[in-house]
Amino acid sequence: MLTEDLYVIGIGPGDLASMSREAYQTLKSVDIIVGYTTYLKCIEEIIGKEQETYVSGMSKEKERVKKAIEYANSGKKVALISSGDPGVYGMAGLALEMAEVEAAEIKIKVLPGITAANAAAAVLGAPLMHDYAVISLSDILTPWEVILKRLKAAAAADLITVLYNPRSSRRKKQLKKAREIYLKERDPKTPVGIVKNISREGEEVLITDLENLPLTKVDMLSTVIIGNSQSYAANNKIITPRGYNV
Amino acid sequence: MLTEDLYVIGIGPGDLASMSREAYQTLKSVDIIVGYTTYLKCIEEIIGKEQETYVSGMSKEKERVKKAIEYANSGKKVALISSGDPGVYGMAGLALEMAEVEAAEIKIKVLPGITAANAAAAVLGAPLMHDYAVISLSDILTPWEVILKRLKAAAAADLITVLYNPRSSRRKKQLKKAREIYLKERDPKTPVGIVKNISREGEEVLITDLENLPLTKVDMLSTVIIGNSQSYAANNKIITPRGYNV
Repeated sequence: MLTEDLYVIGIGPGDLASMSREAYQTLKSVDIIVGYTTYLKCIEEIIGKEQETYVSGMSKEKERVKKAIEYANSGKKVALISSGDPGVYGMAGLALEMAEVEAAEIKIKVLPGITAANAAAAVLGAPLMHDYAVISLSDILTPWEVILKRLKAAAAADLITVLYNPRSSRRKKQLKKAREIYLKERDPKTPVGIVKNISREGEEVLITDLENLPLTKVDMLSTVIIGNSQSYAANNKIITPRGYNV
Repeated sequence: MLTEDLYVIGIGPGDLASMSREAYQTLKSVDIIVGYTTYLKCIEEIIGKEQETYVSGMSKEKERVKKAIEYANSGKKVALISSGDPGVYGMAGLALEMAEVEAAEIKIKVLPGITAANAAAAVLGAPLMHDYAVISLSDILTPWEVILKRLKAAAAADLITVLYNPRSSRRKKQLKKAREIYLKERDPKTPVGIVKNISREGEEVLITDLENLPLTKVDMLSTVIIGNSQSYAANNKIITPRGYNV
């Protein structure tokens, strides 16, 4: 039934119900599941007794991919899990890059998941109904100047914007600066939605606006969505009209 | 078990396996399923004998939402289906807007799905691993000047770009113009992926580049992904590095 050697699997925002049926079935069928500690916990209840796991911590991404390729090379069917969609700031790229560098002769398939942008949008109502940009504020792997340029372009072109990795205890200035950039281009009352721990224990949803965006309430587990010039808040939802005459 | 009155459900790209487990279970539990002809066909095999359906054709979106709200108002549990993610150019916004305008006292929940951007990315490898923009080239509901501005901004800011509704038999100039805009900002060899009928019968995948982008092979059922300055093609996949030192 499993035609590939290594599946890079998006588990979605974190609850088993948001995962695709194919991802779920594949996870239950592989020999070994490789993943980051926190994400393994999200799926532990479906791991069978005969299945192995390989778990490691934050910033061990390359080590996990190396292990996953090794296991696949040794003939095991492997799942490498990623939260959200592995294709969006996740493990898909690294897996394909490293397999190519190592000239690994294994078959790899990416099973997409619901990424934070779409999961957060659903909780907030319908903020992403028009053209949008997805931008990570983490400057660990990307120069801050590149991020700044993208924020300015998205703000000026009235793109709805989803911010990933918006703020951490050690990285606070980026979100403040992003807000400044958007305030230059958009109405201070532009709706902003913040969703923390989407679909997990402790989910929190806040609908606010650009000028009142509470910076200190945003952390690494939050996703921030900034509306476009047409977005509005109603009934505790954010709606961006598509353009129909309602 | 069903706590809401109206569920706006993303069925994903079209195969039952890509749907979230929650979407699948909810579809099987509602009293009536409302949707566009083509999308109802995608899920017809799971519709139970006791379940009703309400089907209508293209550009009848408002009529379908009206019906869905009416059914929910009459006490039925309703699923309004949308391909991909209802929150991305789908039915979520219209449902919330119309319910608000009608002051309908029904509980509405959006169940997200895998949108074409993420589904196409998975088939193409890992093109969306960095900041990206999602832009629809359809100028039916959006002025062409607005779309042009967004294309120029995304191209100049080196955002990976996903084009929805790229081309139809009556709308051909938009994709040609988009290619021109990206060629001004990016290397002619920038990888471009085209996926037609994602996860459906007749799926076609083409990996090409900006200068060779075959305009006439793109239609309304295609999703086009244009890489950023770091994207490359290898082993018939498109990879955009995240920035790890591989």
